Amino acid sequence: MPYFCLNNINWNDEGLIPVIAQEIDTGKVLMLAWMNWEALEMTIESGHAVYWSRSRKCLWQKGEQSGHIQIVKAIYLDCDNDAVLLQIEQIGGIACHTGRRHCFFKRLEEKNWIIVEPILKHPQSIYKNTDEQYS
Amino acid sequence: MPYFCLNNINWNDEGLIPVIAQEIDTGKVLMLAWMNWEALEMTIESGHAVYWSRSRKCLWQKGEQSGHIQIVKAIYLDCDNDAVLLQIEQIGGIACHTGRRHCFFKRLEEKNWIIVEPILKHPQSIYKNTDEQYS
Repeated sequence: MPYFCLNNINWNDEGLIPVIAQEIDTGKVLMLAWMNWEALEMTIESGHAVYWSRSRKCLWQKGEQSGHIQIVKAIYLDCDNDAVLLQIEQIGGIACHTGRRHCFFKRLEEKNWIIVEPILKHPQSIYKNTDEQYS
Repeated sequence: MPYFCLNNINWNDEGLIPVIAQEIDTGKVLMLAWMNWEALEMTIESGHAVYWSRSRKCLWQKGEQSGHIQIVKAIYLDCDNDAVLLQIEQIGGIACHTGRRHCFFKRLEEKNWIIVEPILKHPQSIYKNTDEQYS
């Protein structure tokens, strides 16, 4: 059955929508990434988050290399139909390609960005090929 | 003192960055909006969220009409410097211009977007001028 629900979405000029991934158990905001139609369809179909990599210009099955997949528990669309919220379970407890729990690890303090989260696992031990470190 | 910290940000081609507003006490993701340099500078300076309205093409002091201002408690930048997370206190308990607590009120169920949040206050009683209902 086709995904008519995706017609409701206000995709941007590049055919993308920003997607927030939030850990369902803790409420922690893990990352912001982007999806195109196909990525969102694959996400709905598989129950695992699939994004569009703007830098690599390809679909990006989150965790395909690292094993840090995101199991989707709920998908929300906002009032203007131009932002998505995924509530997910983060396998491995690491969402960020830097090896941290989540991507928002720089906090503004006295007009400086201070790193406030530890690296849990070094990226070199997560990714075999650093060109694909976003997966 | 100038905001050198804003030089670190990867602004998009329109000079904007997506900003997630999260309620600090509950962890609830309230909305996704956009900021330009000036909006983020004003947010840091004032301690209240100021966004850039892409539809109206102007700065948008959140709550200027509705009173539903957002008091900023922490500002985070992500690994790629292209997304911001604000942790805020939402005055009035309503972040969405539809009169709901937050903007992500449509949940995907059986391939349909279902409204799962009630309207707490009707927009007509929040905004005098519906052209400015986003403030």
